[in-house]
Amino acid sequence: MTVRYQRQKGTADILPGEAEQWQYVESVARKIFAKYRYSEIRTPLFENYEVFSRSSGDTSDIVTKEMYDFQDKGGRHIALRPEGTAGVVRAYVENKLYGPEYADPYKVYYMGPMFRYERPQSGRMREFHQIGVEAFGVDTPMLDVETIAMAQELLSTLGLKHLKYVINTLGDAETRAAYHAALVNYLTPYKDELSEDSQVRLAKNPLRILDSKDEHDQAIVANAPSILDFLTPAAQKHFDEVKSQLTALGIAYEVDANMVRGLDYYNHTIFEIMSDSEAFGGKWTTILAGGRYNGLVKELGGPEMPGVGFGMGVERLLLIMNAEGIMPKTTMPLAAYVVGIGTEAHQAVLPLVQAVRKAGFAADCDFMDRKPKAQFKAANREHAVLVITIGEDELVQHAAQVKVMATGEQSQVSFDELTNHFADVYQRLTKGDN
Amino acid sequence: MTVRYQRQKGTADILPGEAEQWQYVESVARKIFAKYRYSEIRTPLFENYEVFSRSSGDTSDIVTKEMYDFQDKGGRHIALRPEGTAGVVRAYVENKLYGPEYADPYKVYYMGPMFRYERPQSGRMREFHQIGVEAFGVDTPMLDVETIAMAQELLSTLGLKHLKYVINTLGDAETRAAYHAALVNYLTPYKDELSEDSQVRLAKNPLRILDSKDEHDQAIVANAPSILDFLTPAAQKHFDEVKSQLTALGIAYEVDANMVRGLDYYNHTIFEIMSDSEAFGGKWTTILAGGRYNGLVKELGGPEMPGVGFGMGVERLLLIMNAEGIMPKTTMPLAAYVVGIGTEAHQAVLPLVQAVRKAGFAADCDFMDRKPKAQFKAANREHAVLVITIGEDELVQHAAQVKVMATGEQSQVSFDELTNHFADVYQRLTKGDN
Repeated sequence: MTVRYQRQKGTADILPGEAEQWQYVESVARKIFAKYRYSEIRTPLFENYEVFSRSSGDTSDIVTKEMYDFQDKGGRHIALRPEGTAGVVRAYVENKLYGPEYADPYKVYYMGPMFRYERPQSGRMREFHQIGVEAFGVDTPMLDVETIAMAQELLSTLGLKHLKYVINTLGDAETRAAYHAALVNYLTPYKDELSEDSQVRLAKNPLRILDSKDEHDQAIVANAPSILDFLTPAAQKHFDEVKSQLTALGIAYEVDANMVRGLDYYNHTIFEIMSDSEAFGGKWTTILAGGRYNGLVKELGGPEMPGVGFGMGVERLLLIMNAEGIMPKTTMPLAAYVVGIGTEAHQAVLPLVQAVRKAGFAADCDFMDRKPKAQFKAANREHAVLVITIGEDELVQHAAQVKVMATGEQSQVSFDELTNHFADVYQRLTKGDN
Repeated sequence: MTVRYQRQKGTADILPGEAEQWQYVESVARKIFAKYRYSEIRTPLFENYEVFSRSSGDTSDIVTKEMYDFQDKGGRHIALRPEGTAGVVRAYVENKLYGPEYADPYKVYYMGPMFRYERPQSGRMREFHQIGVEAFGVDTPMLDVETIAMAQELLSTLGLKHLKYVINTLGDAETRAAYHAALVNYLTPYKDELSEDSQVRLAKNPLRILDSKDEHDQAIVANAPSILDFLTPAAQKHFDEVKSQLTALGIAYEVDANMVRGLDYYNHTIFEIMSDSEAFGGKWTTILAGGRYNGLVKELGGPEMPGVGFGMGVERLLLIMNAEGIMPKTTMPLAAYVVGIGTEAHQAVLPLVQAVRKAGFAADCDFMDRKPKAQFKAANREHAVLVITIGEDELVQHAAQVKVMATGEQSQVSFDELTNHFADVYQRLTKGDN
């Protein structure tokens, strides 16, 4: 019986050809994060369910509908991580990374898979990937601005253009309490007109109604009071400094007072970077988002420690990069393909291939005992820079025929030179062209 | 209420400082694999449960005891991957990577987390990580040898010494059938003396008894017939060629006729690379293992296509590298720490830091409005190569004080030079020492 198995709905195989794109994005991110003194952290793919339910908020879609949670064989209620911040905060607290032996801000980045049981669509998968950063222990506006500047460097280094930087503030606790009351006050007369979801939110988390996707909700919200009118002096000062420092760095931004972000734990600065790429039909789409979350470390059992960070969806980023044709080719050239003619010569092929590789170059050969013609064809197909041929004569002479494929030039090179000085041979024959 | 959450048993936080070691190992592996024309493949972290039960064999410990399997919200029976090969083979079949448009051998590597519900111990975690390779479509001994040679280059590049290469053959189907009969014939009289596990294996998979960890089983097995006496001429020829080509490449090996490997799907060449590192008390321990699995692609619904590969546990590798002191330091040096003295100067700090970063260097500064003394202390603690100081005078003169920390040498450098030609400034002041 042959059953063919399929990958699960909402998951993808990242195949050779595409995987190099992922590597490229990840290596660019690593290099930039290192310049900003961020170090990598890798937290487990699954955690205690409560780590996520507590950090995302019990009423969030993530927790109520989208979590991959289950009992392990020991009866523990665990869940695959639906986002990256909660696990990092858990690790920050559990490993006491707020201790005096660590410098503040404590800066980390992560990259890897996340899991949400959602309806799959373009750029949204059940297993999806995020690159994100978190910086703990400092609550000055300067750190918010550095975070946004790093996001900008990341996206511009990757070649993205026509981006829109949108910021807002959710203020401090006092701001939020006052605004919460004003918003409920404004929305309550419209209660019956609101979408079903928003009616629930009105009691539980009215700020979320501000980014409702329901058109009628949006019409009602258009005239709602603005959080910017409820900022305490301290919150106002924080926001003003963020804006002036962004300007000092030449980062143009818009303020959107209705932007609230999906998660409960944000306060002060929040931001989104949006693209109107053709990948999404020219519609402004968020590709990177983040903000400050000063309450989260405490919420997860740690001390009162501020934090700020962002996350970026990799699938969506790659869609844009491919749509805009800004993805560079990054494969290693095949320096040499070694052709063996005859049984005895074929025995000498792998040792020579290995010598080329040990010199730091990619090399290949035939593994299927094919005829010379098929071997030359393979060398062509793989775009070999040099084709090295060994037959009976060459074995006797301890020297191979080497052909430069770009020019057709052919010469004889001793086995000794090829084996012990391949870098020199390659440089000489290709004149550094390749 | 403050609940502190803990990571799940058998999972680890890979923190800054350690994560760089993972990056180093992964980047070395990537570079070597590329030279051998292996490309990365990334398959989902979870699959249909049957992908694993079918490939690992229904009687394996992995399937019967160790799988993280559960029902998703749509009632699908899925499992977190317990190893890397099955998902890669599923992807190879589902994406028809055996098609004529792809060159044979089709070579891929993977790296990432795997999950087994086991009792955690040193170097063995519930969430653990493997780096592995698979090559499909070619069944010549040459490919087996190349695979082992690549493993050797990987481990020696990472600095591992005193390794033992152990090989064996499980022959072809005919070999296995004949040997199976002979083994059952030999073991049956000892049935009651065998361990409980091995009594079960005797009926289901007697070869597994050969690598039983039970001492009494081992004593019985010591006199069992050897599979090497049951090889068909074709299987003998394959094995002989593997041995002679390994010798031609200068790879010393031992043959262990009792080595069978844990999984059902192997045939012909199997191999293990073992270390007697102090990390495991000097006891020979397998750190990389693999072999040929010509039946697996068909088992998972594909055509009759051979395969060969290996897998390596990253946790175990890192234990050895750290125990042997062969882990290089790989952090990016902090080229400049910018100190701001006074409120106005502090405003100029971040733009200057950003200019240094845009020039490709790591730079840092104070984010907490600290006094100059604390800022200088931070610069020292972070081992800054240069400390750039801006105060009121410097703002007026448009030039900063730059101190080379290694020599104490101090000089004045214009903002323009620092901002637009930092690489030159750095080179001049450090004379390329750093």
